[in-house]
Amino acid sequence: MMNDLYNQVLKLLRPSSVAVIGASRDPEKIGHQVVRNLIRSGFPREKIYPINPRAYEILGLRCYSSILEVPDKVDLVVIVVPARIVPKVLEEAGKKGVEAVAIITSGFKEVGNVEAELQLVRIARKYGFRILGPNIVGICDTIRGVNASFCQDLPRPGNIAFITQSGALAIALVGWTRLKGIGLSDLVSIGNKADLNEIDFIDFFGRDPYTRVISAYLEGVTEGRRFIEVAREVSKKKPIIILKAGKAERTIGAIRSHTGTLAGSDAAYDAAFKQAGVLRAPTFIELFDWALALAKAELPRGENTVILTNGGGAGVMATDAAEEWGIKLMDIPPDLKEKLRKHMPPFGSTFNPIDITGMAGREWYKGAMKELLLDPRIHSIVVLYCHTAITDPNDIADAILEAIRETDVQKTVVASFIGGEEVMEACEKLTKNNVPCYESPEKAISALGILYKYKKHREKLSKQTMVHLNVDKKQAYKIIKRALNEGRYSLTPSEAAGVASAYGIPVLEKILTNSKEEAVKAAEKIGYPVVLEIESPQIIHKTDVGGIILNIKNKDELLKAYDEIVVNIRNKAPDAEIRGVIVRKMVEKGKEVIIGMHRDPIFGPLVMFGSGGILVELIKDVAFRVAPLSVEEAYDMIKETKAYTILKGFRGEKPTDIDSIVDTLLRISKLASDFEEISDIDINPFFVYSENKGGIAIDIKILLERKSDH
Amino acid sequence: MMNDLYNQVLKLLRPSSVAVIGASRDPEKIGHQVVRNLIRSGFPREKIYPINPRAYEILGLRCYSSILEVPDKVDLVVIVVPARIVPKVLEEAGKKGVEAVAIITSGFKEVGNVEAELQLVRIARKYGFRILGPNIVGICDTIRGVNASFCQDLPRPGNIAFITQSGALAIALVGWTRLKGIGLSDLVSIGNKADLNEIDFIDFFGRDPYTRVISAYLEGVTEGRRFIEVAREVSKKKPIIILKAGKAERTIGAIRSHTGTLAGSDAAYDAAFKQAGVLRAPTFIELFDWALALAKAELPRGENTVILTNGGGAGVMATDAAEEWGIKLMDIPPDLKEKLRKHMPPFGSTFNPIDITGMAGREWYKGAMKELLLDPRIHSIVVLYCHTAITDPNDIADAILEAIRETDVQKTVVASFIGGEEVMEACEKLTKNNVPCYESPEKAISALGILYKYKKHREKLSKQTMVHLNVDKKQAYKIIKRALNEGRYSLTPSEAAGVASAYGIPVLEKILTNSKEEAVKAAEKIGYPVVLEIESPQIIHKTDVGGIILNIKNKDELLKAYDEIVVNIRNKAPDAEIRGVIVRKMVEKGKEVIIGMHRDPIFGPLVMFGSGGILVELIKDVAFRVAPLSVEEAYDMIKETKAYTILKGFRGEKPTDIDSIVDTLLRISKLASDFEEISDIDINPFFVYSENKGGIAIDIKILLERKSDH
Repeated sequence: MMNDLYNQVLKLLRPSSVAVIGASRDPEKIGHQVVRNLIRSGFPREKIYPINPRAYEILGLRCYSSILEVPDKVDLVVIVVPARIVPKVLEEAGKKGVEAVAIITSGFKEVGNVEAELQLVRIARKYGFRILGPNIVGICDTIRGVNASFCQDLPRPGNIAFITQSGALAIALVGWTRLKGIGLSDLVSIGNKADLNEIDFIDFFGRDPYTRVISAYLEGVTEGRRFIEVAREVSKKKPIIILKAGKAERTIGAIRSHTGTLAGSDAAYDAAFKQAGVLRAPTFIELFDWALALAKAELPRGENTVILTNGGGAGVMATDAAEEWGIKLMDIPPDLKEKLRKHMPPFGSTFNPIDITGMAGREWYKGAMKELLLDPRIHSIVVLYCHTAITDPNDIADAILEAIRETDVQKTVVASFIGGEEVMEACEKLTKNNVPCYESPEKAISALGILYKYKKHREKLSKQTMVHLNVDKKQAYKIIKRALNEGRYSLTPSEAAGVASAYGIPVLEKILTNSKEEAVKAAEKIGYPVVLEIESPQIIHKTDVGGIILNIKNKDELLKAYDEIVVNIRNKAPDAEIRGVIVRKMVEKGKEVIIGMHRDPIFGPLVMFGSGGILVELIKDVAFRVAPLSVEEAYDMIKETKAYTILKGFRGEKPTDIDSIVDTLLRISKLASDFEEISDIDINPFFVYSENKGGIAIDIKILLERKSDH
Repeated sequence: MMNDLYNQVLKLLRPSSVAVIGASRDPEKIGHQVVRNLIRSGFPREKIYPINPRAYEILGLRCYSSILEVPDKVDLVVIVVPARIVPKVLEEAGKKGVEAVAIITSGFKEVGNVEAELQLVRIARKYGFRILGPNIVGICDTIRGVNASFCQDLPRPGNIAFITQSGALAIALVGWTRLKGIGLSDLVSIGNKADLNEIDFIDFFGRDPYTRVISAYLEGVTEGRRFIEVAREVSKKKPIIILKAGKAERTIGAIRSHTGTLAGSDAAYDAAFKQAGVLRAPTFIELFDWALALAKAELPRGENTVILTNGGGAGVMATDAAEEWGIKLMDIPPDLKEKLRKHMPPFGSTFNPIDITGMAGREWYKGAMKELLLDPRIHSIVVLYCHTAITDPNDIADAILEAIRETDVQKTVVASFIGGEEVMEACEKLTKNNVPCYESPEKAISALGILYKYKKHREKLSKQTMVHLNVDKKQAYKIIKRALNEGRYSLTPSEAAGVASAYGIPVLEKILTNSKEEAVKAAEKIGYPVVLEIESPQIIHKTDVGGIILNIKNKDELLKAYDEIVVNIRNKAPDAEIRGVIVRKMVEKGKEVIIGMHRDPIFGPLVMFGSGGILVELIKDVAFRVAPLSVEEAYDMIKETKAYTILKGFRGEKPTDIDSIVDTLLRISKLASDFEEISDIDINPFFVYSENKGGIAIDIKILLERKSDH
């Protein structure tokens, strides 16, 4: 199945023959431009088959009235006929036995014609071929030289694949990348994603020998779970960088009306990307800056970084940026300082950043670079050049490349050449020779930062521990089913506690009682001091109606409290249906955290961890991950929060039992994965005690999916 | 005095005649290049005077052996002779009666020759002229066409002044701005700032009719107070954008060794920039992106912004960025929607961002732009264009400019044209015609964001209320002087409370007692319940040694507590010098905040406000401002913190008495301004009560300057 898909996408992206259904003689028409672009891109003329029943010849190529007339095999079919004719020509393509069709035509889901789009997929399924689109710009492949799109020019050749959900950006960014000297292996416009989507292409490029980096502009993912699985596997081999637009509340609306994508919440995307090792770029500028770094430079073998500069200012900027990226600038050891002294004037600096001064020319740059390359204590080098009146930037670029060639050391080297027209050639030469070069020191540092980040992601992905948890699924199901049968979409506190207990989550024992006698018995079983709480589906905020009484120390107090609570409810919530009175243990206060789960429409169960009390609302101190969670992911989400600082022992306090939180997160993850019926879980607060003392869910709420039809 | 300075800087930057002392025939020498560059830049040949005792002619110009021989008046003297000869030629310049000297020569403070540099200033003072430098690249003035530097080319002409402390960056960035099409009025390299510094030039450009925006690269400011005063006045008229490098701890070291600047702490810079209305750019890319916007576009008249695009993706990116910048996207009213419908296909969107689709050409862009320009409800327009296969970007640029011309409406318009080489001409044309155009939607939004930010800064600067506070300065001085006379650099708690009280800061009354009898009397005066605290210069953490006992309700308890505290100290801190036992009122707990002051070496008293308790350490929830504070600044610093959310009434709680914090901040500001002897003040905690109930300093520490010689 996977191999089938790979081969079908291969036909689509690296075709040996192309038919253009809707080819036109009118140069204004897309049907003309696609044929013209194919020819221009160097695709063999004899393998281009224009299809148009009313033309004999287009751009010197013989025209066919139907694809069925084409005497040869057709790898890729490009469709540009009006929307209403697409089903007819698709049927013909199916009969011809093609494997891949790219539908450029628009006028489907994006304008509300959902049914028309579904029809296309049905036809594809009937014949077993795959569809790219509809509503796309087309495909550009610089490997074979195929421009099956209405982008006028192919991108520069390179090894970065670019997948885009926006057609308008496809053309604009091909131009932009050409201008910036960024080479692409492929450009794929995925449009409405009726059949093939970004995941199929991420999968394909993961296997494609010509692609080193996969980049994408996305407005939304539709198959959340599959996205994580595929992207995670691919990220272990190649970096994936995605610009996911549509964070703003307002944008989410814009996307809905724009491409019909149901945008998941941004927290879910953020979590999913992290878990899949995907690098998230804030704008297309970073997207391609980073892609260039990952396509060109070596991944660093260690953390020690050295900055080499001819201008103090540039060194200072790079140092500021390095601190932001968490890049470790190595202190230069005395022996290396001595060696470096040979390659700078007396007023140069051997401090890191190493400043060989504006007097530095070819020899000093080369000499200093060699020292840094040959020193095994150094893993990454950031080389900066500010254009001066007395040096030729091309000499400096040569010096850097010669140093690398002559030492023959595989190290991470990134560069920034600051200047105008004069430095551009030198900068391009460096990039071409695998030293990605940028216009500003901050960009060079950001490039190095992303190399470190990807390296870390890859290491994380390679060790994910999934644990088997013993749970009583049957018991949990019984409780959930009963609620659903009763038409309820939220569990009562004792039901929720029951489900949690069945899943091994430490939860405050709550005994539902219906008389004073039962309450006394319950209290004796649990042991004083206890708490009494009213149990009623209608009462959410118990404190407000006097529905909770704390710290009851003995039988007398209990009897009094029981009466009190009943009177309170009678007065303040006379219409509430009373299911009884809960008796529970009065527990010591631990550190408050919150644990929860919300089922995201795209990615499924999104597990949450965060600070409790005032912090969660004041600074939104929460972290998310998509279930099922690995042990490492559970730890990571805790470490991501400020709560971690408190939990590990703040200002001399004892560390708390973080393992108990991890365990609870894993169990919540399992519970949410096992029961699609559960829409939300909220443990607030969860008390964590000191190390080895565990933790306990004080209050747990469980909501059920309204849509599910049990 | 101010006018003198203005005229002297005018001579320096806009000279009518220039002498180059150290002019050389050797093209490799800077002394040659400066003369060559002056000629090339179009400076009148007859007004260039090369000075070189061993040459008769340089580049066809008559050479003089000394400046004293020049028959004409000399406005600007440029010095390029070796460091040791500089004093001699400076003396000659002084005798000649010049007003401004630019010393390109290096080898002074930056390599440790502090005394040599001071000598230059002494000579300047003797003759009354001003020095720029030493250790500079020179000056470029595009207004008169003066290139008195060793930058090969003049920048493009424009109305952005650029001041740089890094010479290497000067040359590199002249090249970069040329490449990016950014025009500068002047480039000033300030080097070691022996005499004239950035403040003098900010002042000058503030008055200069050719400059609309002042930009600077700085590694440090030396005259902190003057910087704020001058920059604040200039910011009311023109925007100042500064890239202040050296935030990283490591960089601060690099700067020290690099230009000898003592870098102030970054918090002080941040505060000073805010108070002076200075916009702080993170990198030189934003610096010039923003400068371009401020030099070209109108300041917005209101907050309603509309995005117009031909590509959904670009609109989504812009919307995301707008949310980050806090830019308000207006909901399009139905009547305007109807009008806009005429300028787009049926599947276009009248939602904001308005998407006139990839089909939009000249007419639709023009039509839609006109609707937006003419609608008085709209204040700012962001117009986006993604390059398509069917439109000419120059047409779109023309359409935008025609719409502006024909409607003749003064509105803020910024643009982004996304694409390659094809869109560059259109983008430049827009920028030239005062519609700053950028390569990405995020940059266009950032440009608009900075226009809003500057507008807000300017509004703030125009209303700063300074209040007169009644304080007992004499009493405070008495206490401080006593401590200094005793050789102490910290005040005891009761001394600190005394100083605070003298300055009207509500402080918990603390009575120092030396016997049980005195303690009883004090308690009766204050009223029970009270707290006992040990008073000892050696005991910092009283709780640790049992040196504090809370909630003493009557005389019996007091007597018992007194004994207890004495025993505790005897056991746990036997060597501490005991000054007595403090009796103070037991007060109700308010919301905890902290208020403080640290004297910054550059900017002086830096007043701090922040969250108390765990928040300050966990999330560094603090804000700083340089004293003296205005009422508005005091409010602003509170609003900047998360604490504000709590103070104004969080989760249904009553609002607290924020005015009492403002009052205390103002009094701390006055205290710090009145007494240079105070290095640090720390009120931790300060309790704030509910509205109109005030607040109180529970604990106050005051430290004195170690260096001061009283």
